[in-house]
Amino acid sequence: MNSLKKNQEHALIEKIKDWTGSRRIGDDCAVLPGGALASVDTLVDGVHFRTGSISFRDLGWKAVAVNLSDIAAMAGRPRNILVSLSAPTSLTERALAELFRGISECARSYRVEVAGGDLTGGPVLSLSITVLGEVHEQGVLLRSGARPGDLLVCTGDFGASAAGLHLQEAGEWGGQASYVIERHCRPEPRLCEAWALLRACKGRGALIDSSDGLADAVIQLAVASRVSIVIEAEKVPVHQECIEIAGLAGLDPLDWALYGGEDYELVGCIDNDSYKVLESYGKLNPFHVIGFVNSITQDTESNLSNSAARVRLADNRLVELDGQKSFQHFEHKPD
Amino acid sequence: MNSLKKNQEHALIEKIKDWTGSRRIGDDCAVLPGGALASVDTLVDGVHFRTGSISFRDLGWKAVAVNLSDIAAMAGRPRNILVSLSAPTSLTERALAELFRGISECARSYRVEVAGGDLTGGPVLSLSITVLGEVHEQGVLLRSGARPGDLLVCTGDFGASAAGLHLQEAGEWGGQASYVIERHCRPEPRLCEAWALLRACKGRGALIDSSDGLADAVIQLAVASRVSIVIEAEKVPVHQECIEIAGLAGLDPLDWALYGGEDYELVGCIDNDSYKVLESYGKLNPFHVIGFVNSITQDTESNLSNSAARVRLADNRLVELDGQKSFQHFEHKPD
Repeated sequence: MNSLKKNQEHALIEKIKDWTGSRRIGDDCAVLPGGALASVDTLVDGVHFRTGSISFRDLGWKAVAVNLSDIAAMAGRPRNILVSLSAPTSLTERALAELFRGISECARSYRVEVAGGDLTGGPVLSLSITVLGEVHEQGVLLRSGARPGDLLVCTGDFGASAAGLHLQEAGEWGGQASYVIERHCRPEPRLCEAWALLRACKGRGALIDSSDGLADAVIQLAVASRVSIVIEAEKVPVHQECIEIAGLAGLDPLDWALYGGEDYELVGCIDNDSYKVLESYGKLNPFHVIGFVNSITQDTESNLSNSAARVRLADNRLVELDGQKSFQHFEHKPD
Repeated sequence: MNSLKKNQEHALIEKIKDWTGSRRIGDDCAVLPGGALASVDTLVDGVHFRTGSISFRDLGWKAVAVNLSDIAAMAGRPRNILVSLSAPTSLTERALAELFRGISECARSYRVEVAGGDLTGGPVLSLSITVLGEVHEQGVLLRSGARPGDLLVCTGDFGASAAGLHLQEAGEWGGQASYVIERHCRPEPRLCEAWALLRACKGRGALIDSSDGLADAVIQLAVASRVSIVIEAEKVPVHQECIEIAGLAGLDPLDWALYGGEDYELVGCIDNDSYKVLESYGKLNPFHVIGFVNSITQDTESNLSNSAARVRLADNRLVELDGQKSFQHFEHKPD
């Protein structure tokens, strides 16, 4: 379903910055002059989903949700989406109607308008969604805002989407109500949660969404902020259903949580005082503390992407997060 | 290379407006609150181009140019683009570098910044480009702005891109310098020309780009403005090289001009006084008069899309433009 060359993808993005001379590439959204936010994400049949495994209605929802999650990752406010659809001739009008039903449901849920798009033929179903928004009036949270001494916080739970995908791919899902299937097919962009974090930290923090897994999110935060981050494995929220499915499959649910991807939770770094503001919300606080931020020592500075992000396991061993293992959707052939 | 069900595409767009409840779908770009313009276009290998027939550098240029043309079609000012690339693993880094070289060349030529994007795997190369811009300070030109008594005007010439495609597909192009190949591979968005038209008509006019052919552009203007438009065939500019290639192929160059598509010229409707302003520029006037706008009579009102747009041939016969013949890239299967 995906290839595992995350480092190669990041190297390629660095090259694209060179080739285009762009200063804006790198975060979840581009921040444009005037405070506009813009982002695009493409979902391709056979790479990000399989028609047959996901309903067209859920696919429409998910395509919008993952894009809104990019706006949430910067605590922004989404306003409009553009839908560019490339579809084979075999796609029926009923399927298209269901797809747009899902797109509209998600857009309406988050008060976003479908403003335009493009329809074209193509060998496989491919959905490119552009989301346009605005930075929040209280500022923007970037990946680069983490400071030594910060807490590592997150929303929701991790690994559920990978567990849902596993159920679908293994043909073990009988169609009954399932938390992990719901998480895989209808992720919810954490917009309100992002705004709560922004208000609590008054703009002094770092934020990203976990589209490519918790490990990748933490690596990105560490690299962009030039800090060292430690995840405490025992504190990472994992849903009971995910643990059970991993158990039946003989897999470690922590692997899904760290490397599975597509959970679309928020992962951020804020200081203690900011977290106390969130704690004062009691049960309405959507964030958990799952680790902490240190300064980088001389020996980690030489190879930031490999050693600045680690996980402390239950047996107290400190293990480097593996950037190569992370969920990713792009692979290309070197010359 | 493309399927010929233009009317079906328009019907589908009407349905999508219903499904999404969107009030902004329909013009070349969405006009967002605050005067932002946004548009997205996707080019798919085997549908819009064939790797092997077009260089990666030209493909990059063209992908940006066709999107900037959507901004030109509303006389807007492009500012930023987002590039979403879906590519098979067989694509080399050299090919990617050439693609982004072309993207950057076109972006720089028109003072547009690459602000972000997305990279993903996929079975075929597919490029979704989102262009973001602003409405011109003197206003916006829509498809719906034509009035009876207006002149039909256009930039450049028509049919050259289809002639270039014909040369490529027939394997008759030896690689020598060729106007029609250049027009097919490196179209130029008519931004300055659109701004000149907007200034000359002070915002009282209609505008569209001819991405799907001159006939489709005129049909769209007629339908959106609820007017009747006549193209005078003898006035349609067609390049000598296009005429020669059509002659050798035993085809009518007017067919390419009307239905070939991908010329990305501007087609507009303005009144006589506005055209006099353009004429005062002498040789610097980029527009030709190629027809005129009438009011629709009762009998054409009943079936606007078929009878409101016609072409007067050299022998003076008045022939309806055929919406079904137009170049289009989308087809879907009815239930």
